[in-house]
Amino acid sequence: MTSELKSLMDSVREFSNERDWDQFHSPKNLACALSVEAAELLEHFQWLSEAQSYALPLDKRNEISEEAADIFLYLLSLAEKLDFDLIAASRRKLLLNAEKYPIDKSRGTSKKYTEL
Amino acid sequence: MTSELKSLMDSVREFSNERDWDQFHSPKNLACALSVEAAELLEHFQWLSEAQSYALPLDKRNEISEEAADIFLYLLSLAEKLDFDLIAASRRKLLLNAEKYPIDKSRGTSKKYTEL
Amino acid sequence: MTSELKSLMDSVREFSNERDWDQFHSPKNLACALSVEAAELLEHFQWLSEAQSYALPLDKRNEISEEAADIFLYLLSLAEKLDFDLIAASRRKLLLNAEKYPIDKSRGTSKKYTEL
Amino acid sequence: MTSELKSLMDSVREFSNERDWDQFHSPKNLACALSVEAAELLEHFQWLSEAQSYALPLDKRNEISEEAADIFLYLLSLAEKLDFDLIAASRRKLLLNAEKYPIDKSRGTSKKYTEL
Repeated sequence: MTSELKSLMDSVREFSNERDWDQFHSPKNLACALSVEAAELLEHFQWLSEAQSYALPLDKRNEISEEAADIFLYLLSLAEKLDFDLIAASRRKLLLNAEKYPIDKSRGTSKKYTEL
Repeated sequence: MTSELKSLMDSVREFSNERDWDQFHSPKNLACALSVEAAELLEHFQWLSEAQSYALPLDKRNEISEEAADIFLYLLSLAEKLDFDLIAASRRKLLLNAEKYPIDKSRGTSKKYTEL
Repeated sequence: MTSELKSLMDSVREFSNERDWDQFHSPKNLACALSVEAAELLEHFQWLSEAQSYALPLDKRNEISEEAADIFLYLLSLAEKLDFDLIAASRRKLLLNAEKYPIDKSRGTSKKYTEL
Repeated sequence: MTSELKSLMDSVREFSNERDWDQFHSPKNLACALSVEAAELLEHFQWLSEAQSYALPLDKRNEISEEAADIFLYLLSLAEKLDFDLIAASRRKLLLNAEKYPIDKSRGTSKKYTEL
């Protein structure tokens, strides 16, 4: 993990420690919080058309970047609690996805790999 | 953004381009996918006690790290589509959270800032 | 509550009792399960356009009705655990929504009541 | 469907018609809204222990019943749009679940049917 991410994770840990919040941050509760934050992000889009979602005004994009940040901060906490490297896991997942979705079969279709 | 994250984002973009999937990845659809992946992560925890969630076997932790990776990969795609820096947004959000949750008021309580 | 819903709730309770699942069905866990099922429903739609979502083939609609059923069954369990009447609560919520969204202000707009 | 549910669905339809909101209520958007509301319900529980979730004060239970109502109202709208009977689908789903989770195999365990 890069020093920039390490430094962000240090800040997240310090933030939680200063508030004595570690007691609330069980992996289960962090998973709940992740779903809650993901839905807060989705709320911005629920009544928009896809076309509108490409053309958001700057203030909306800023609000959405804040929700994305909340998700990312909880992801980092969860990765620390469960002791995995989020970047390395993401590299591995991309490789797995490349196997599940061979280019020739998945090109131009949004079908799930189970239906290819 | 660090070169490690840039390289990961390059891989994500290449993966999508090779499959001609950009047409499906409107910001709205990516927000839907984020909620779906967050719930797949939550599914692993839904019937567990908090204590059990701290003591997961390695294979479960691996499965969970894969779900976390899916979330992260979509977050990176969304950040690119909406043109924001996820790390910088997360730094800003931590500062905002520090204002919303002053240490002396929020110490040891899980109350929402609106109820402090 | 109508006799039809009462009979459905009786079946849900019996199903859970026969399997000794009440131990897993804390209100918190049921709330997790509701989010998981709602996301399984959303998964069917995540890459579809809105137009496509109006024109689903019958087998897709059947699958979606099953996900909707899962949500409803957990809603009924939660209502029983927390001792509220889902139909009566829904009637009350419609009245509250009518106050939050006056016809003349909310007509033809998808804005949240806080932004009207 | 019972007359009580029919009457509730009539009210939901009237509410939407008066506000000209049908244009926003594509099946896809209703599925998004369902996930958003399910997460608002989950938010009440995210930092609570399971024990605390059994012992909520009355005002919290009322707030939660309102979130459950929101979910139910969107479920009814979705059922109408996709033309299925929510009660009948739920009866069918209980029967399917009974097959997926035979009593002797699933008794006292929270394992998914794929792992039984």
